[in-house]
Amino acid sequence: MKGQAGVILAPTTTNDVATIVQHCFEARVGVVPYGGGTGLVGGQVCESGPTPVILSLERMNSVRGLSLDDDVLTVDAGVLLADVRGAAQKAGRLFALSLASEGSCQIGGNLATNAGGIQVLRYGSARDLCLGVEAVMPDGSILNGLSRLHKDNTGYDLRDLLIGSEGTLGVITGASLRLVAPPKHSISAFVQVPDPTQAVALLGLCKDAIGDSIYAFELISGRGFEFLRETQAALRLPFALDPAWSVLIDAGGDDEIALSARIESVLAAAHQSGLVMDALISQSESQRDAFWQVRESIPEANRKIGSIYSHDISVPVGRIPEFIARADKALLGLAPFRINCFGHLGDGNLHYNVFPETGRARRDYDGLRDTIKETVYELVHELEGSISAEHGIGRLKTGDLNRYSDPTKIKAMRSIKAAIDPRGIMNPGAIFGSEPN
Amino acid sequence: MKGQAGVILAPTTTNDVATIVQHCFEARVGVVPYGGGTGLVGGQVCESGPTPVILSLERMNSVRGLSLDDDVLTVDAGVLLADVRGAAQKAGRLFALSLASEGSCQIGGNLATNAGGIQVLRYGSARDLCLGVEAVMPDGSILNGLSRLHKDNTGYDLRDLLIGSEGTLGVITGASLRLVAPPKHSISAFVQVPDPTQAVALLGLCKDAIGDSIYAFELISGRGFEFLRETQAALRLPFALDPAWSVLIDAGGDDEIALSARIESVLAAAHQSGLVMDALISQSESQRDAFWQVRESIPEANRKIGSIYSHDISVPVGRIPEFIARADKALLGLAPFRINCFGHLGDGNLHYNVFPETGRARRDYDGLRDTIKETVYELVHELEGSISAEHGIGRLKTGDLNRYSDPTKIKAMRSIKAAIDPRGIMNPGAIFGSEPN
Repeated sequence: MKGQAGVILAPTTTNDVATIVQHCFEARVGVVPYGGGTGLVGGQVCESGPTPVILSLERMNSVRGLSLDDDVLTVDAGVLLADVRGAAQKAGRLFALSLASEGSCQIGGNLATNAGGIQVLRYGSARDLCLGVEAVMPDGSILNGLSRLHKDNTGYDLRDLLIGSEGTLGVITGASLRLVAPPKHSISAFVQVPDPTQAVALLGLCKDAIGDSIYAFELISGRGFEFLRETQAALRLPFALDPAWSVLIDAGGDDEIALSARIESVLAAAHQSGLVMDALISQSESQRDAFWQVRESIPEANRKIGSIYSHDISVPVGRIPEFIARADKALLGLAPFRINCFGHLGDGNLHYNVFPETGRARRDYDGLRDTIKETVYELVHELEGSISAEHGIGRLKTGDLNRYSDPTKIKAMRSIKAAIDPRGIMNPGAIFGSEPN
Repeated sequence: MKGQAGVILAPTTTNDVATIVQHCFEARVGVVPYGGGTGLVGGQVCESGPTPVILSLERMNSVRGLSLDDDVLTVDAGVLLADVRGAAQKAGRLFALSLASEGSCQIGGNLATNAGGIQVLRYGSARDLCLGVEAVMPDGSILNGLSRLHKDNTGYDLRDLLIGSEGTLGVITGASLRLVAPPKHSISAFVQVPDPTQAVALLGLCKDAIGDSIYAFELISGRGFEFLRETQAALRLPFALDPAWSVLIDAGGDDEIALSARIESVLAAAHQSGLVMDALISQSESQRDAFWQVRESIPEANRKIGSIYSHDISVPVGRIPEFIARADKALLGLAPFRINCFGHLGDGNLHYNVFPETGRARRDYDGLRDTIKETVYELVHELEGSISAEHGIGRLKTGDLNRYSDPTKIKAMRSIKAAIDPRGIMNPGAIFGSEPN
C-alpha cells in the first residue's frame, strides 16, 4: 500500500511523545503511530485526509527492567519482538509471542494490534502476555500503567482496551510483559492427515491425551509445499511426497521421555483409527527447527507467488472442515485459483489465501477481487466466525467491520472513540474509516 | 452492609433484561445487577440515592451449550460457579476459576468483578477464562458477544471492558467460557517455611524447577491456624505444632510419578538450603482435599472472629516480605491486633486482615478503622501495589480508588462511563461513588 508522506518524528522518551501528541491535539493534527511496519491491514499508513504526523517508536528501544520474582519484563514500545524474546531467554524465561516477523516487528505494534502467532493455543495472544501498558492519551496526558502486578481489580481494564485498538485511542509507549517458565523439553510432530476433518479429530484426540502439553497445532496444505518448492528450492521438506494435508504439532513438557512416549502413543492410536497416514517425530532440536522452518517459510512463499486476496479468518474449530470445503467450492467455481489454506488450526484461525493459476498474474483477477473477499466473508459470517482473527482492521477492513459486526458493538466502540479521542487525531482512518464519530 | 430495599426483578431471558433496562433508561431509574451476593466490597447493594431496580440474574441459570471442539461452555449469567465447574467436569474439562464461595456465587458476578481465587497463578482470573459476553447495555440494546472464537481482532475489546466493570457499563447476561484439559494428576505440598522471605525464595526455586506445573502457591500464617482452632475445632490440621508461616503448593501434570519426584527433589533442595523446615506431600486425593480444606476454611474462620478491617491487596511478589514486616510493625504500634495475613503469594495477592485482640470486639476499634486502612494502603501504594487485587471497588473503596489511582486512568474511566451510560443508571454509586461524571 502506498503511504502518504508526512512529518516523521522519532522521539526517544515518553515525555517527548506526550509533548508531540499534545501539540497535535491543540493543532488538531492526526498522529499515526508507527512500529515495525509489518502489519498486513494498512493500520500504520495513512492514505488520505490532512497530512498527519508519523510517530515512529523506533528510537524508544530500551529494556527498562526485569523482575524475576514477578516474571515481568518492562520494555519501551519500540523494542523488537526478537529482542524481547532474547531478553527473556537470557533470564531463563520465555516471552511466548512467536511470529515469523519477530526480527522487524516491535512490541508496541504487537500490542496495538493484539498480535497472535504460533503459540496462542497454549499462551494466548499479545493481550494475554501483557500485565500493563504505559500510553500517551490523545490529549497528551500519560497513562502510567506499567504494573508488575498479576492481580489488580481497581477499575476499568484500560490496558486491554488500548491493546488491539490499533493506535486509535492512544500511543503505547511501554509495556510490562508477562514471562513464563519455558518447558524443559519440546517435541514436534509433522503428521500427514487425510483431510481437514481428520485434522480436527486428531486435535480432539491430542487434547484428551496430552491436552496440557500441546503448544501449537498448525494446518498445512499441499499447496503450501508446492509454493515452497516453486520459490525456495533449497528448503528441505519433510516428506518425499508432499501430503495434501498435514499438521505440525508442538508439545512441551518437563520429562522428555514421557512426553515423547505420550506423543507416539496418541499418534499410533490415531493411525489405527485412520486419522493419521504418516508421522515424523522430531528426534533432535535441529530437526524440530527444520520442521518449523517449513511452516514459517510459507508466508514468504506466498509473498513471492503474490496473492489476489489474503484472508485472516477464524471460525469455531469444528467448522473448519466445512469452511474449507465450501470456500474452495465457491471460489473454484469462479476461476481455477490456486488456494493456499494454512494456519493455526488449534485456535480456529486460518490464513485462506487465493492466488492466480500458474502462468497468470494477480492483476488478471482485479475484477474478481471483491467477489472473492465477499464470498469468503459471507461464509465466515454464516459460520459465526471472524473476518480478522489476528491481523486487525487497519484501513483495509473498515467497511467489512461495519458490515459484519454487531451494531451494538460498533455503537459502543464509536462512543468510546469519541469519548477518549474527541478530536479524532489518533491514527485517523484506522478501524472506523474516515468518519469515526 | 445494609442494603436499601427496592423493586427486585428476576427476569428469565436476555430480552426481558433488555426490556427492563430500556424502561429504566427512559425513566432514568438506576439498575443494580445482583448475582450471588457474595461480593465483599458492596458492589451489589445500594446505600443511598433514588430507589433503584434490583436486577437479579438468579432465574437465568441455564447452560446454553457446550462445544468440545472449541473447549467452550456457554452459560446464562445466573449459573452458579459450582454448576459451571460441574458441567465442565462432566465433559472431561476444567473451568479453572476456583473460589471458596462457588456454591453461591454466580458466573455473571464473577465476570462483572473479574474474580480471582486459588488458581490464578496457572490459569489467570475470570477475565482470562472468558471468550465472550452477552450483555444488555444501558440503553437496553443487546451486545451479542457470545463468541466461541479463540481469536477475533475485530475492534475494541468490549468483553474485557465489561468484565471487571462491576455492572457500571451494562448487565452481563451470558458468557462463553474457556475450558481447559485438566492435569491428569495433582499433588499438593504443605510446607513449613521460616518466614515470608523464604516463602518467596521457595516460589522462585519452584518456578525454576517445575514452573509449568505449579497451579497454586498459597501463604498461610500461624494466626490462620490459631483462628481455625478457635472456630472450627473439628477440622484436622496438618502439623502437630502450627507453623508460624507455611505455604500450600498445588502442582499438576500428566505423569504422577515424575511429578511427585520433581516436587520431592525441589523441596529436598530447599530444605538443604534452609528455605524449608518441614513438608508434607499429599499421598492421595483425599489427603490433598484435606490440605485444601484447611486453606479454604480460613475465610470462614475470619468471619467468625470478625475483622476490624480486611484488605485485599497485591504488591510485586518480591516486596511481599517487606510489606508484611512493615505493615505488621505499623499496625502493632497502634494496638495489639491479631493480624491474619494469608493468600495467593504466587500472584502477589494477600488478604491482610486485622482482628481485635482476644477478648475484645471489633466495635472497640471503631475509632482506629480509618487509620488501619490508611496505614496499609499508603504502604501498598509506596510499594507499587494495588488496593484491590481481586475483590474490586464496589461502594466501599470508591474514595480509595480516586486517591491512589493514576489521574489519567480515572479521567479515561469517567469518559467511558459517561459515553456508554450517559444517564448514569447502571449500578449507580459503584466504582465512581455518587458523582460518576
